[in-house]
Amino acid sequence: MQMTDLIAKKRDGGTLTTEEIEFIIQGYTAGTIPDYQMSALCMAIVFQGMNDRETLDMTMAMMHSGETLDLSPIQGIKGDKHSTGGVGDKTSLILCPMVAACGVKIAKMSGRGLGHTGGTIDKLESFPGFVTGISEERFFENVNRIGIAIAGQTANLVPADKKLYALRDVTGTVPSIPLIVSSIMSKKLASGADVIVLDVKCGSGAFMKTEEQARELARGLTRVGRLAGRKVCAVITDMDEPLGYAVGNAIEVKEAISVLRGETKGELLELCLALGSCILTESGIAESDSQAREMLQETIAMGSALKKLAELVEGQYGDPAAVYDTSLLPAAPVTIEVESEQAGYVRHIEAEQVGLVSMHLGGGRATKESTIDLSVGLELHKKVADHVEAGESLATIYAPNEQKAAEAAALLRRCYTFSDTPVEKPKFIKDIIR
Amino acid sequence: MQMTDLIAKKRDGGTLTTEEIEFIIQGYTAGTIPDYQMSALCMAIVFQGMNDRETLDMTMAMMHSGETLDLSPIQGIKGDKHSTGGVGDKTSLILCPMVAACGVKIAKMSGRGLGHTGGTIDKLESFPGFVTGISEERFFENVNRIGIAIAGQTANLVPADKKLYALRDVTGTVPSIPLIVSSIMSKKLASGADVIVLDVKCGSGAFMKTEEQARELARGLTRVGRLAGRKVCAVITDMDEPLGYAVGNAIEVKEAISVLRGETKGELLELCLALGSCILTESGIAESDSQAREMLQETIAMGSALKKLAELVEGQYGDPAAVYDTSLLPAAPVTIEVESEQAGYVRHIEAEQVGLVSMHLGGGRATKESTIDLSVGLELHKKVADHVEAGESLATIYAPNEQKAAEAAALLRRCYTFSDTPVEKPKFIKDIIR
Repeated sequence: MQMTDLIAKKRDGGTLTTEEIEFIIQGYTAGTIPDYQMSALCMAIVFQGMNDRETLDMTMAMMHSGETLDLSPIQGIKGDKHSTGGVGDKTSLILCPMVAACGVKIAKMSGRGLGHTGGTIDKLESFPGFVTGISEERFFENVNRIGIAIAGQTANLVPADKKLYALRDVTGTVPSIPLIVSSIMSKKLASGADVIVLDVKCGSGAFMKTEEQARELARGLTRVGRLAGRKVCAVITDMDEPLGYAVGNAIEVKEAISVLRGETKGELLELCLALGSCILTESGIAESDSQAREMLQETIAMGSALKKLAELVEGQYGDPAAVYDTSLLPAAPVTIEVESEQAGYVRHIEAEQVGLVSMHLGGGRATKESTIDLSVGLELHKKVADHVEAGESLATIYAPNEQKAAEAAALLRRCYTFSDTPVEKPKFIKDIIR
Repeated sequence: MQMTDLIAKKRDGGTLTTEEIEFIIQGYTAGTIPDYQMSALCMAIVFQGMNDRETLDMTMAMMHSGETLDLSPIQGIKGDKHSTGGVGDKTSLILCPMVAACGVKIAKMSGRGLGHTGGTIDKLESFPGFVTGISEERFFENVNRIGIAIAGQTANLVPADKKLYALRDVTGTVPSIPLIVSSIMSKKLASGADVIVLDVKCGSGAFMKTEEQARELARGLTRVGRLAGRKVCAVITDMDEPLGYAVGNAIEVKEAISVLRGETKGELLELCLALGSCILTESGIAESDSQAREMLQETIAMGSALKKLAELVEGQYGDPAAVYDTSLLPAAPVTIEVESEQAGYVRHIEAEQVGLVSMHLGGGRATKESTIDLSVGLELHKKVADHVEAGESLATIYAPNEQKAAEAAALLRRCYTFSDTPVEKPKFIKDIIR
């Protein structure tokens, strides 16, 4: 088998066989197929696509390029959630305790933030003492005992994806649905869950700019997941503005806790109910969406989800008292308000830029090696369609010092655009793909 | 300027600016742009193409990646010819002396053969004593004195093309008209001729399989050449079977001499008249095609073209007597006839395979480092549309020993396919693009 022939085959619109795809992924991972051939193949795939069988084969070949997690020591149904990435996305902090409180086992490997997006692992470290790098033994023990553990990735999962994604990033070959699907699903499948729910973001702050693109990606993800024998569904959500109000680490934890306490409603809760009801129905724990939503609402009303978060924190050596008293979380020394320079209706908030403001404050990583300040960030008070008076506060900035605070305020003001006339709020949950 | 952005621009159907193309070619030649980005860009170009301006810019940027030949020491109009590569193509050996005899200066850099195609330089070395690596001084002196010199390439012409072609060859990015055009024309422009005639082959034995592809390439080549300020035309010719009868080195020289002596007519002479008349009219030496053809025919009738070949050979330290007495050329020790196993009309002769038979005999190079046997090869007696009886000779094999001869005969027989009913000879000269 010659890589040159396989590139030509795909270039000319052909379909690669299972053996050919395995040859490609194994060869690329082992280094016998060079980057320059792989990038040419990826560009051919950008134009010619891959069918479901090819995408599944690539997903499986990538998944088998390294270790896979064996979750069989865990009793019950294992659930997992993946988001295509957004700003202010603290969904996992709310969703995971909620579904764990309903009996779904959450044995989750999660990542750190990079660039304008945050990471669940970073956010959890806001709890004093919290350890993300727990032992495998402790990880399984916690899931079996309390139903939930969220750890940083230690196993060498899907090395093919690490190598391939780095290549695609610098060769203009990121925007290809089948390549994105195999990248996401190889990692999710390697993580071992039975039920996977996907939060596919769309809009100016997301990789998928249009609803149609997001829908195509969601369909590809669910089809491949199902072909691989997992239960999968996807929720398509708006990312034309940040998700919820807080962007940072400790302050996102505070917002998550506020939702779990039943104090904050809105789109963030809606998203968790939609994602959670997918997990509960696919798991067979709930018979219908309405039953699932009732069960999930109950975890808030009864405080069982908040308690589950406290157990998660305690199980990973953190201080559970901070779940009930958020003043124990890291707090920034400087707090200022960002006053609006004009009156009007908020037309748009540039989500990616808001993420960069948080990064500028020290709350996000410019490179993988950066250290971050868990206390800083921002809290929006005005979101799309809200009316604001001149001089009214758009947001609160939590900063390490006065200078950074002033800079962040100026940057944040530029993220907002206004309209003189009322603005219609875009539909937040666009669709659910089962 | 970021290469990643330029790849994305082309991927999305954008047009690269002159500065962007110069950045790409300079960076790639210098090694600051890696192979994996260049191959991704090439694949994007395979799908999205390049317009004439982009193709010209790439051609010029590649041409300026290394040395260029300054032919200004030569008085008069300098002509050059390029063929897209075929089997049995001894055209330069006939055409160059003919047009030189008409007053066009031929200062030609030529290549060696590789794989199934032969090279003019190898063929000329069949003349005892012939030196292809003459000094630059001698090269210019000969062109000024006798009007013709054909040397091996010594200058570092178009290093960008050497590097890029090697990459395209292993990344499935060869079949792109604008990339082929810039590869061919950068070398032709760097070689310094005023008038360039291109022989674009089409058919099963050529890179361009269809007449439409060949026409598109021919148009691309002439447009870019003209935009670069040269006089260019292209002849589209059939390569569904080998060109002429002989395939090898010394035996191709014999066929060329036979044409120059007026003893062999047919498609080979037709091609030389078509190419030559393009050169003479574009040069302004002839006013019309018919006048040009008369002048060219005259060089054969008067023996001036044959004399010019003898002067070329003598000018490069070879024995001119071999031009008049071809028994002085290398001759193979073993000669056998390939008898047809069946009667019928020749439907097709697989040109590329015929080239490989010659290579098998030792007449062609498997790798750049191979040494070749100038005496071996084959001479076809039956070509497409000819009728053959069972037992009649299809071809004569010139071999180094009995075993090779027998092997070659078996291989050659398989190059032929037959029809019971008469076969129409395909049109040889398909079109002339000016």
